[in-house]
Amino acid sequence: MNADLRKINDLDRLIHEPARLMIVTILSAVESADFLYLQHETGLTRGNLSAHLSKLEEAGYVKIEKTYKGKLPLTVCKLTATGQKALNGYRRQLQQFMAATTG
Amino acid sequence: MNADLRKINDLDRLIHEPARLMIVTILSAVESADFLYLQHETGLTRGNLSAHLSKLEEAGYVKIEKTYKGKLPLTVCKLTATGQKALNGYRRQLQQFMAATTG
Repeated sequence: MNADLRKINDLDRLIHEPARLMIVTILSAVESADFLYLQHETGLTRGNLSAHLSKLEEAGYVKIEKTYKGKLPLTVCKLTATGQKALNGYRRQLQQFMAATTG
Repeated sequence: MNADLRKINDLDRLIHEPARLMIVTILSAVESADFLYLQHETGLTRGNLSAHLSKLEEAGYVKIEKTYKGKLPLTVCKLTATGQKALNGYRRQLQQFMAATTG
């Protein structure tokens, strides 16, 4: 059992953080999402969402484009191929852990 | 989807931390375990394991008894009923999240 167990310690902690797991999960289901949509879906505060998006952007998991919709600023977020791969790997690791262990 | 998603933000963060998830998972499978056994199974350093156990003890999830085996000190750890319930709840929440979402 301990080999399966120890793998949990190698989980991608960037994605393991619940707020960021929400964000990448939402982004994996859509082509792109703007900041307000993400805020609405996640229930995160503006500051929290912004901080988590920055970390995901730094890691290359999310691409953020600041643009305009008419005169209003619009922040468009997109999961990158790297981010999608990281999310897939994370989910796989978690599933393996859950299957290999019981409560 | 967002109701299921948001639930992930309510996860018990004490258990969500991978090292602590390892510890409670091991303890849930045995009657009790001593410190050295836990260190061996988890691969954690003495200091890390000790710090995580303290947090789990503070939360009432783990009971720790310091005793002796002959002249050698022995630290015996046990998952409490509260800890078992928290682990069960955590696993259930995680399973629901995984079922409700895809990568």
